[in-house]
Amino acid sequence: MSAPDPTFSHLDATGAARMVNVGHKPLQARAATAVGELGCQPATIELLRARALPKGDVIAAARLAGILAAKRTDELIPLCHSLPLDSVSVDFELRVDRVVITATARTTARTGVEMEALVAVTLAGLTLYDMMKAVDKTMVLGAVRVTEKIK
Amino acid sequence: MSAPDPTFSHLDATGAARMVNVGHKPLQARAATAVGELGCQPATIELLRARALPKGDVIAAARLAGILAAKRTDELIPLCHSLPLDSVSVDFELRVDRVVITATARTTARTGVEMEALVAVTLAGLTLYDMMKAVDKTMVLGAVRVTEKIK
Amino acid sequence: MSAPDPTFSHLDATGAARMVNVGHKPLQARAATAVGELGCQPATIELLRARALPKGDVIAAARLAGILAAKRTDELIPLCHSLPLDSVSVDFELRVDRVVITATARTTARTGVEMEALVAVTLAGLTLYDMMKAVDKTMVLGAVRVTEKIK
Amino acid sequence: MSAPDPTFSHLDATGAARMVNVGHKPLQARAATAVGELGCQPATIELLRARALPKGDVIAAARLAGILAAKRTDELIPLCHSLPLDSVSVDFELRVDRVVITATARTTARTGVEMEALVAVTLAGLTLYDMMKAVDKTMVLGAVRVTEKIK
Amino acid sequence: MSAPDPTFSHLDATGAARMVNVGHKPLQARAATAVGELGCQPATIELLRARALPKGDVIAAARLAGILAAKRTDELIPLCHSLPLDSVSVDFELRVDRVVITATARTTARTGVEMEALVAVTLAGLTLYDMMKAVDKTMVLGAVRVTEKIK
Amino acid sequence: MSAPDPTFSHLDATGAARMVNVGHKPLQARAATAVGELGCQPATIELLRARALPKGDVIAAARLAGILAAKRTDELIPLCHSLPLDSVSVDFELRVDRVVITATARTTARTGVEMEALVAVTLAGLTLYDMMKAVDKTMVLGAVRVTEKIK
Repeated sequence: MSAPDPTFSHLDATGAARMVNVGHKPLQARAATAVGELGCQPATIELLRARALPKGDVIAAARLAGILAAKRTDELIPLCHSLPLDSVSVDFELRVDRVVITATARTTARTGVEMEALVAVTLAGLTLYDMMKAVDKTMVLGAVRVTEKIK
Repeated sequence: MSAPDPTFSHLDATGAARMVNVGHKPLQARAATAVGELGCQPATIELLRARALPKGDVIAAARLAGILAAKRTDELIPLCHSLPLDSVSVDFELRVDRVVITATARTTARTGVEMEALVAVTLAGLTLYDMMKAVDKTMVLGAVRVTEKIK
Repeated sequence: MSAPDPTFSHLDATGAARMVNVGHKPLQARAATAVGELGCQPATIELLRARALPKGDVIAAARLAGILAAKRTDELIPLCHSLPLDSVSVDFELRVDRVVITATARTTARTGVEMEALVAVTLAGLTLYDMMKAVDKTMVLGAVRVTEKIK
Repeated sequence: MSAPDPTFSHLDATGAARMVNVGHKPLQARAATAVGELGCQPATIELLRARALPKGDVIAAARLAGILAAKRTDELIPLCHSLPLDSVSVDFELRVDRVVITATARTTARTGVEMEALVAVTLAGLTLYDMMKAVDKTMVLGAVRVTEKIK
Repeated sequence: MSAPDPTFSHLDATGAARMVNVGHKPLQARAATAVGELGCQPATIELLRARALPKGDVIAAARLAGILAAKRTDELIPLCHSLPLDSVSVDFELRVDRVVITATARTTARTGVEMEALVAVTLAGLTLYDMMKAVDKTMVLGAVRVTEKIK
Repeated sequence: MSAPDPTFSHLDATGAARMVNVGHKPLQARAATAVGELGCQPATIELLRARALPKGDVIAAARLAGILAAKRTDELIPLCHSLPLDSVSVDFELRVDRVVITATARTTARTGVEMEALVAVTLAGLTLYDMMKAVDKTMVLGAVRVTEKIK
């Protein structure tokens, strides 16, 4: 675990927020993967399996919400740059008492895409939450983090 | 803990997703509160205290990102209704190793605002993540859940 | 077939575009249904049946794109009012050589939702087009029209 | 007429939707042209000629709506990439009983712009529909298709 | 000139920004008018007259940009409420050395629409600036203010 | 003061609006700076100093609104290209009776970013207006202009 560096890159010397200048950085292939978990009752997972596999719309809605949100990361996270994503994928693994969500974003740009991957995981998770909230009042979205960053 | 009901309200009888018809429900004052936590290193919290309290921009950016995202919940969560929010507030509590984020949304509408509160917490948390990621590679967003729903 | 009335309601006396004032109209339950057709090769329909029914993502993506676009009609059609939709549904019927798309929007508002229904049909159709264009270069979106308007 | 290829490029091996990875493709000048027709009563065309030519706002509104929508294609079509458009133009030809709409989009990017051209035609057509719907209840948007794709 | 009141309504007791709660206020017809001026060279005005009156697209583009932006005021001004506008109009008066822009917004809502009127004036002015900047490097947007507020 | 050139670049030979084709221009580092002033009562400036310096949220909200709007310039100004901004900064200087707002945008693109800088200044100014309007009815946004353009 590295010790925190003493500066916040998004603040200038006076403490004001700014979009960091990336104009001098090279265009480079970059990727990031983030994961998260939506904890829920086992019966909800059973229902999701029963409904989701034949009909598709619950998982499909969450996947598309994650992809669409990733493309708008620069509108949602104030100091993020607008990056042209080369691809985004969002996958779901159903476990006994939770759905594990994994998103990977790729770009060829001057800065990385970890925020895009995190936004995809989070909005996919909240979309699942929205679609299952009538049947499960115990859901918690957690363990949202970046697991891989490549350039 | 209630047993899940056997239906997903956002799916019709054929399993297709739809926006549930709320036209017959009354306009009613409604509120929801959600919370979440951004876990980080104690040194990051120290830095946040040192930077945030005098200068304001880190916490202020996260707060505004949460408020702005709450107003766009219907664009982010595919089956959510567009609700005119009466108010949104987002608060932050700095603990030793995490930031606790609390958001409350209020409306006078035909359906509730828990998704708006969850979206506010989540985007506020991811904005903090974005601003602090240069100094802390260990952050995890978690425990995102609804704590109160009133109508 | 009624003879056209001599005025365009969105133009003022000088010919300038404006959003028509609806402030004096009552809040009223309103609905509109629109349909359209995406013509394609029979083999594409076969492929869609084979892929869509078990896995769902093609049709589900088109449905969600239609629902999401309907909620943003006021951003897409310059002189449309922002209406809080009570519900939107988008359905698909697979015929031999085309997909028939039907969308119904409902609101309780001062003006109608036919543009919302048309936007839903159109964006659902274009999303199908996008997902199937690698396998079929002959697709045509047509017969997009309002079939019912209720208040 | 080519036989459909057996794969939908936007689905992975499990049938899940994804944004196709275009990171390995070269940046290349690309263009696409789409057309469509808004069928209407001859009297509506007469009115459009009388109003549109001297005052401009009806056709101008449709043109701008098409251009603005083309720039947001990635928000409207879930699996489209965000492409920086080099130019967009939308033209209108008034015939006896319909308006023929033609849009051309150009980019220097890793993938094509046919969806951008289709979105421009479609939203331009729906904006005309919106502005003329008070005088003509018989309009139909059709024959929307790609007529040229260059790279 | 009234003396400033000692509180900023958008800040809570701790100085944090929030969307003010308007849930207890009545739904009420409200209107606001704002004006602004785009100063430019007399020759630019001559060109605008020559081009704009027969063809319409310059003024029409500015008008539509103002109307569209007014509908998105809540996305642009962080603490503004989302209001359903009953109407928006934007007018232009060509004087010797400037364009005077006037916008009026109307709503039936719990809070006023002066920000919507200001956003319409400003974006209409900047759109004119964009379209005329190739021919005039001296333009200045100024005197943007609210001239009337009614409820 | 240069004499206006006889053409509006955003209009084609028939007077129709279009997005100018920039595909043949080189990718180039470009920057633009714009300024503007929000005139207000001296007591408002005093209040802003008292509130803003320790707590930050008023100025921070205006700064973020400016940065966020700059990233969406292509959605707000109809004929602007979508440019990937390398950086945006917005600064505020408190004078006796006004706030001077300065924004600088940078990109590596085929066309310039003066509209992005102007949009940032303007929305930052209107956000200040919104937050201070309860205490000062005399505010005027003016002197909005481009002060530097580099490539």
